[in-house]
Amino acid sequence: MEIQKIDLLQKDMPKKWYNIQADLPKPLDPPLGPDGKPIGPDALAAIFPMSLIEQEVSQERWIDIPEPVLDAYNRWRPAPIFRAIHLEKALKTPAKIYYKYEGCSPAGSHKPNTSIAQAYFNAQAGVKRITTETGAGQWGSALAFAGALFGIEVRVFMVKVSYNLKPYRRMLMNVWGAECIPSPSDQTQYGRKLLAEDPDNPGSLGVAISEAVEEAATRKDTNYSLGSVLNHVCMHQTIIGLESKKQLESIGVYPDVVIGCIGGGSNFAGISFPYIHDKITQNKKVDIVAVEPCACPTVTKGEYEYDYGDTAGMAPILKMYTLGHSFMPPSIHAGGLRYHGMSPLVSAVVNQGFVEARSYHQNEIFDAGILFARTEGIVPAPETNHAVRAAIHEAEKAREEGKEKTILFNFSGHGFFDLSSYDLYLGNHLEDYEYPSEAIEKALKDLPFRK
Amino acid sequence: MEIQKIDLLQKDMPKKWYNIQADLPKPLDPPLGPDGKPIGPDALAAIFPMSLIEQEVSQERWIDIPEPVLDAYNRWRPAPIFRAIHLEKALKTPAKIYYKYEGCSPAGSHKPNTSIAQAYFNAQAGVKRITTETGAGQWGSALAFAGALFGIEVRVFMVKVSYNLKPYRRMLMNVWGAECIPSPSDQTQYGRKLLAEDPDNPGSLGVAISEAVEEAATRKDTNYSLGSVLNHVCMHQTIIGLESKKQLESIGVYPDVVIGCIGGGSNFAGISFPYIHDKITQNKKVDIVAVEPCACPTVTKGEYEYDYGDTAGMAPILKMYTLGHSFMPPSIHAGGLRYHGMSPLVSAVVNQGFVEARSYHQNEIFDAGILFARTEGIVPAPETNHAVRAAIHEAEKAREEGKEKTILFNFSGHGFFDLSSYDLYLGNHLEDYEYPSEAIEKALKDLPFRK
Repeated sequence: MEIQKIDLLQKDMPKKWYNIQADLPKPLDPPLGPDGKPIGPDALAAIFPMSLIEQEVSQERWIDIPEPVLDAYNRWRPAPIFRAIHLEKALKTPAKIYYKYEGCSPAGSHKPNTSIAQAYFNAQAGVKRITTETGAGQWGSALAFAGALFGIEVRVFMVKVSYNLKPYRRMLMNVWGAECIPSPSDQTQYGRKLLAEDPDNPGSLGVAISEAVEEAATRKDTNYSLGSVLNHVCMHQTIIGLESKKQLESIGVYPDVVIGCIGGGSNFAGISFPYIHDKITQNKKVDIVAVEPCACPTVTKGEYEYDYGDTAGMAPILKMYTLGHSFMPPSIHAGGLRYHGMSPLVSAVVNQGFVEARSYHQNEIFDAGILFARTEGIVPAPETNHAVRAAIHEAEKAREEGKEKTILFNFSGHGFFDLSSYDLYLGNHLEDYEYPSEAIEKALKDLPFRK
Repeated sequence: MEIQKIDLLQKDMPKKWYNIQADLPKPLDPPLGPDGKPIGPDALAAIFPMSLIEQEVSQERWIDIPEPVLDAYNRWRPAPIFRAIHLEKALKTPAKIYYKYEGCSPAGSHKPNTSIAQAYFNAQAGVKRITTETGAGQWGSALAFAGALFGIEVRVFMVKVSYNLKPYRRMLMNVWGAECIPSPSDQTQYGRKLLAEDPDNPGSLGVAISEAVEEAATRKDTNYSLGSVLNHVCMHQTIIGLESKKQLESIGVYPDVVIGCIGGGSNFAGISFPYIHDKITQNKKVDIVAVEPCACPTVTKGEYEYDYGDTAGMAPILKMYTLGHSFMPPSIHAGGLRYHGMSPLVSAVVNQGFVEARSYHQNEIFDAGILFARTEGIVPAPETNHAVRAAIHEAEKAREEGKEKTILFNFSGHGFFDLSSYDLYLGNHLEDYEYPSEAIEKALKDLPFRK
């Protein structure tokens, strides 16, 4: 009987997050204000608590996870690692495929790893109310969950097209006591402006960010919370990779390949940074693969440049891979990967040569999801299917090369709220999008300080 | 830091199921045919493989779990036990509340514990195709999942009103490759008869069972599979309670109260039978509580008599608590608890004095579910909310009595597919039903051999 589930005892859970800024050979470029000058912590203090701002710029390698955050993590963490032996058999591969299962969190994805930390630090700072945005709804529900735990009121601006298509996500937020409103809304100046221009504006993640930031910046009792992209968010997610190292170590395994999907970059950062640490500091031989959709090819076709994080240009300007903040990706079903930019830290590890980026089309990632569901049982989210597809790709390569490779990928979330996308796929109704390079070139012209 | 998650290593998982028939002080009354005479194994052979029929009547205390079933269980088992310390705090109770989390299975409930076993034994017998029925969809998706693992074609008759209300469940079955059709359908004689009488017949579990049984009985290549009620189903579920005993033992705990909800009885059997074993054989002091909806009060208001398991009277006649096979419970949101009968084994342990049965209204069980979600994080299925409500009740009693009681309940499934029910509850749109005793009395008049 093969062992398929590798648990870690709760008492052995890591007690610190890993901050990769301490180890980057070339440090991050600073965030800029609209005038092109570096902004200091004060500029962020209107919407973030000082403790998170400190984490954002910290150069400390290890940062203690506070007891109440560990306590909240312990509602489901440590998350299990599974060996996908039935998928291996179906692929007739000599490779061993392991996946870290983040779908076991109450919200169904990796997002609570940071929503809980952010809610805690805000509660510590006396904040009673937080706004945020959400696309497909994973982040919004994760913050709603964390708000319930720490007694913080949560208001979520949800991209209108998703709000209408995914009513269960809105209901889930309500169950945890949060308010969820479709964006653009009449609750902000920016939202009202857009609705005046077009009452049927379907919304976008960039627009929802602008609304949430505006409300937090203009209300003294309200802070803002972001579910990906920022340095402190990536750091909170490193609990994923740190746990996985302990678990694999307990069975004497170190991976040859580590895989995660990228939208804003946080789940990929979570699984990969602890391994990139080994690569940087011990010259460890491990391939790190970041996977994105062909329809939103931020890293594979974008530029490494300064750009706005949101559509309205209210958020700070970050050095990152970007397709231009006016880029509007097609409505693919991996809603969480439809973002024009990329976490500055993830951008840096790609740019500094530690990570290979790769893209897949949506029909091939659903092929992978169906094969996974019918062999391993668990139904992955469309975002996660990108990582599944890459893991299958690596396992097939191992078969062709006759190599006994060990593959680890991050199973970022389950697909129980995405079944209508599977339904369209099974009915042969999904399109593959190849973004024309002229459209990308056009959006890149909007970069604020392009050389 | 309190330990909240109690894992069991995969190598320590129980390797046998527990068969309570070996220990019942008074053995079960035999199933009867329409003529009132006991039926033998042969009568069942048209729709069940002989291995399951043998389990149905076995008097052996322990039955080996075959390796391929263990291997399939290991995709997610052992299931964790959590201590609900945050719920305890909210209730200000000295009681300790533990729950066995069956929502971690790929189908989201305890149902795969038996769907996998049934698919395996059918596959061993060379069966290529299985029919079944499903109400809310938990059982249908669990059998679809198991069918995918063992290469068996699965056809699910889903109660039409649920088919239309819960499209995600149908989609989930399709992801695993199963066919799901609304019942009554034009695929069976009984279905066609009902549709001729009323094309808008909304269906019921009893009707769907009749359709699935008819198809299995009339097609040589097809067997039938039932998700609850039968003895072998209850036995497969004992993995739940057996694991829980090992887990609690590892932290030096034995429960004072064990709680499960009852519809057909299988998840309750799973958690409680291993403890009832201790009660019968070692006179152990432990309270066992079975919880049902006031709107379908099978055990609390029904009779312990012989009755049909289905509406059309095609299934064998079983000695059980029943409200009469023509009883039509109101459309409460705990679809899995809307069944007129009760597992003969569960009925026997109630009737022989080992179990206390209790009922709650649907608004109070949703109260409990919301409190649970906002303290512990995980959103329970409406069925599970009945167990949550009873656990809270016991914890409040412990507070009033100032007693340090240990409560264990079975968390039979998560509520991700039931969010529209929560939505109605939060909007104050749920009704509480008290079934008039005349209606129950009327349905009980249909009992085939009532004295």
